[in-house]
Amino acid sequence: MDKHEIFMRKALEEARLAEEEGEIPVGAVVVCKGRVIARAHNQTERLNDVTAHAEMLAITSATSLLGGKYLNDCTLYVTLEPCVMCGGALAWAQLGELVYGAADPHRGYARLSPSVLHPKTNVVTGVLENECGELVKNFFAKKR
Amino acid sequence: MDKHEIFMRKALEEARLAEEEGEIPVGAVVVCKGRVIARAHNQTERLNDVTAHAEMLAITSATSLLGGKYLNDCTLYVTLEPCVMCGGALAWAQLGELVYGAADPHRGYARLSPSVLHPKTNVVTGVLENECGELVKNFFAKKR
Repeated sequence: MDKHEIFMRKALEEARLAEEEGEIPVGAVVVCKGRVIARAHNQTERLNDVTAHAEMLAITSATSLLGGKYLNDCTLYVTLEPCVMCGGALAWAQLGELVYGAADPHRGYARLSPSVLHPKTNVVTGVLENECGELVKNFFAKKR
Repeated sequence: MDKHEIFMRKALEEARLAEEEGEIPVGAVVVCKGRVIARAHNQTERLNDVTAHAEMLAITSATSLLGGKYLNDCTLYVTLEPCVMCGGALAWAQLGELVYGAADPHRGYARLSPSVLHPKTNVVTGVLENECGELVKNFFAKKR
């Protein structure tokens, strides 16, 4: 398994925790120098807060641990393409690298122009795409 | 003074609190049925958190008070045009009305296409524009 897959599996573990809690199953981890320094999953229902996406919670947790506001040397792994809010937050954090699993053509940041992310953020897409996408699809299928 | 000016003055009070704390002076209030239900100012430095913009804190505070995730019946007043992150958050909150003071051509959400906000959000711009803008301009002038 390559490095990206190993860490995306950690993000998937978080997404499954979200699912167990009745949340839209999206998970994220922040990796710095080969180590997971933050992990989070979507908690919008539990916290009754639309801003409590996995990425937002992971950013806050990671910067709190690092003691700085920026994540230049970090990679954020997230199972679903970040939304506009999270993309904007990742830009403010000057994220070094973003790796996501499934694309989100309706709500994702990549639809937007000009680009939402920080110009220096490296982006890798499609890591464990099917597994990440199926989780969300099945969640909504069960809701119907 | 019209209604929008009255509430924008409350947002300006919050922006001045931010300034006193050494934060970029942006303030916000959420109004529901003629009553201020949340007020917040930028706290990115104090909380060491790029996501702690006035609007984000105001959304979390307002929805916590209302006990629901949505702000359809609310107006958010903010002294500066929201950034992409905050615009995305306001969309998730299905905000009824956004009123802002000064435009932010470099960082504001309005540059983005397609539109970042919820399609039903009514937008009013330029309320006490000069006063709101001067606060931010003076803050950065002093920093140089």
